[in-house]
Amino acid sequence: MGRIFKERTSVDEALQLFLESFSSLRRTEEVPLETCAGRVLAESVISGRDVPHYRRAAMDGYAVRASDTSGASPANPVFLQLSDCVEEGTSMWVHTGAALPEGADAVVMVEDTVTAGNMVEIRAQVHPGRNVGQAGEDIKKEDLVFEEGHLLRPCDAAVLASLGLKRAKVFRKPVVAVIPTGDELVSREKAGEVPPVGMVLETNGLMTALYVEKWGGISRYAGIVPDRPESIKEAIESNLDADMILLSGGTSVGKRDHAPEAVESLGKLLVHGVGVSPGKPVALGVINETPVVCLPGYPVAGLVALYFFVRPGIRKLGSIPEMPEFVLRKQLASKISSKIGYVNFIRVVFEGNKVRPITGKAGVLSSVAKADGYVLVPENIEGYEEGQEVDVFLIE
Amino acid sequence: MGRIFKERTSVDEALQLFLESFSSLRRTEEVPLETCAGRVLAESVISGRDVPHYRRAAMDGYAVRASDTSGASPANPVFLQLSDCVEEGTSMWVHTGAALPEGADAVVMVEDTVTAGNMVEIRAQVHPGRNVGQAGEDIKKEDLVFEEGHLLRPCDAAVLASLGLKRAKVFRKPVVAVIPTGDELVSREKAGEVPPVGMVLETNGLMTALYVEKWGGISRYAGIVPDRPESIKEAIESNLDADMILLSGGTSVGKRDHAPEAVESLGKLLVHGVGVSPGKPVALGVINETPVVCLPGYPVAGLVALYFFVRPGIRKLGSIPEMPEFVLRKQLASKISSKIGYVNFIRVVFEGNKVRPITGKAGVLSSVAKADGYVLVPENIEGYEEGQEVDVFLIE
Repeated sequence: MGRIFKERTSVDEALQLFLESFSSLRRTEEVPLETCAGRVLAESVISGRDVPHYRRAAMDGYAVRASDTSGASPANPVFLQLSDCVEEGTSMWVHTGAALPEGADAVVMVEDTVTAGNMVEIRAQVHPGRNVGQAGEDIKKEDLVFEEGHLLRPCDAAVLASLGLKRAKVFRKPVVAVIPTGDELVSREKAGEVPPVGMVLETNGLMTALYVEKWGGISRYAGIVPDRPESIKEAIESNLDADMILLSGGTSVGKRDHAPEAVESLGKLLVHGVGVSPGKPVALGVINETPVVCLPGYPVAGLVALYFFVRPGIRKLGSIPEMPEFVLRKQLASKISSKIGYVNFIRVVFEGNKVRPITGKAGVLSSVAKADGYVLVPENIEGYEEGQEVDVFLIE
Repeated sequence: MGRIFKERTSVDEALQLFLESFSSLRRTEEVPLETCAGRVLAESVISGRDVPHYRRAAMDGYAVRASDTSGASPANPVFLQLSDCVEEGTSMWVHTGAALPEGADAVVMVEDTVTAGNMVEIRAQVHPGRNVGQAGEDIKKEDLVFEEGHLLRPCDAAVLASLGLKRAKVFRKPVVAVIPTGDELVSREKAGEVPPVGMVLETNGLMTALYVEKWGGISRYAGIVPDRPESIKEAIESNLDADMILLSGGTSVGKRDHAPEAVESLGKLLVHGVGVSPGKPVALGVINETPVVCLPGYPVAGLVALYFFVRPGIRKLGSIPEMPEFVLRKQLASKISSKIGYVNFIRVVFEGNKVRPITGKAGVLSSVAKADGYVLVPENIEGYEEGQEVDVFLIE
């Protein structure tokens, strides 16, 4: 006992200290376009081809020399001979996307024509280039198509495919070790039986691993570690090949809380105690350039630490670009009281067009299961009144 | 020739006709909790246990009989004997989460105590239940934890795990056949060589398959089918075991457009021609209760049809709940002109705090690759002025 939080760091400062303490991985791999969606390009893509690579008809109709249609109108049509090539006085059927025949420089759309025998009646004048897609109109050879760091969407995969590519060079996903700690934890392999009194099933590690995967990492579940300093140190050391280490539990200042100390003994403890509620006991550190987050064992506090620190950490490691945050503006169905000096993470449920705060203990995971989203109350605000409009973030 | 669109149906009416023409699948499967995130619960979950299943300490401190602390304060402490059980006059150390000893009914937090030898000085009065989590405080046995149809998030997986479950019963993902059609298409297996003049690499099928997967379906790529009515009918028939069929290309009213007719000959063509630009040629039908979408071959028009019809279709098939739409409010950096009578799908790029419309041809996929999002201009509006605030949807 007698231990205290190293300090209470503000969320913003803690995040900055954390993100500055390690670098993006920038390790790359090639993936088939069939699995590239959601990955981040590790190189700029310059087109090696014109797309399309030929001049094409943009409409179904007749390829012509534009000069042959001079003055044509429904009242004064021009007659051209149907042919299998285009030269003065002849015309040739083309469908949308077909190559434009050599001598042609325009297409008269089928709606402006009437065919009779081997003649076609042209009822509209067209200018050179009319209804023609030039070679390279979509993408020119040597065009910069995507910059490095672009997050690939399905439509982008199609663009890469149109360049003749089969694979994309992307940043590797960071490997994140998930280490649940606690003498009270029982492996979920024994989920069938109710654990002995005083013991609980390990569930934070599962939640953590699934968020890691959702946010673009590869999770590696390391198995339960008891609340002994040496065991925790060993578990950390045997996972230093990972790109990030997450310890769950043992991060407060009680007799059995050894995680922050273990980090400090092996590397640098940057922060212990953050101005967020729930989530105060979170600790952040770095060991040999590997970022470490000690997640509080209380499930909601752990969730807050995941959102506030692990998600940005994975983004930085994997060079995943920041996306606009999904925020809804909603009225509060009842007031929120908040602790000054802490960013308060308030779970809310949708209720018609409004949101209602959930009052429940930080330890109670079911309150998250009931929540649709959360509202953040800044450090310097005591809360929000009923009816006030607030930003609501979805719980993914 | 001479064929015309069956009609031009409004987007809303077309979607309603389409969604009414088939049912949700409601086929179920069991998946391990490790892979349940993003899946939809196919049954309500009733807890078979109390969580926690025992009374536990909510703080590190001393378990006591609350009546023993009556009147205790820093000036007037009460002294209790340290023991390995709790009865009148004795007290026992407990850490957060530990089972509360039998005789105890409260916990005095460690900060309000001082130990000396085998005595503990209690400096605060506690009421029965203070710092105690009752059995079932998180979830009670028989509680309804999730309703059928709930979309499982990582935090929900942890809740299911805390109930002692290892698997979740979820709705199966719909299988969606993707059939690219077109004489001009070259398989992407030959991506290394520039295709002959007049031929293009098949890329719409790749885009379609990746969106299907993103939106919760399983895509089945069926290979390229030529522009012949019999070939298209055969391809449809051999994919009627799928839950949805997507034909790409051949959906307009040209000589080589046979997809809608093929649908009509095998089942019911509900809609051909929708009031959306680009995307007008989209056709919607149903064959033996299997929904069919004919996607325009122009990539952007195809993308619009994917967003407007395929995404809601997959949601209905897979019983995937509607989520709040991710919308940003942004000012226009320049005006948008729009075609009356059509919902106009305008691609936009972020430009500081504003969005700028991209002017580009519907056929040009690279304009989507450049776009961050899109703005929809309703049928009855001619456009928006520069500086006007508009809703912006992200292109996923």
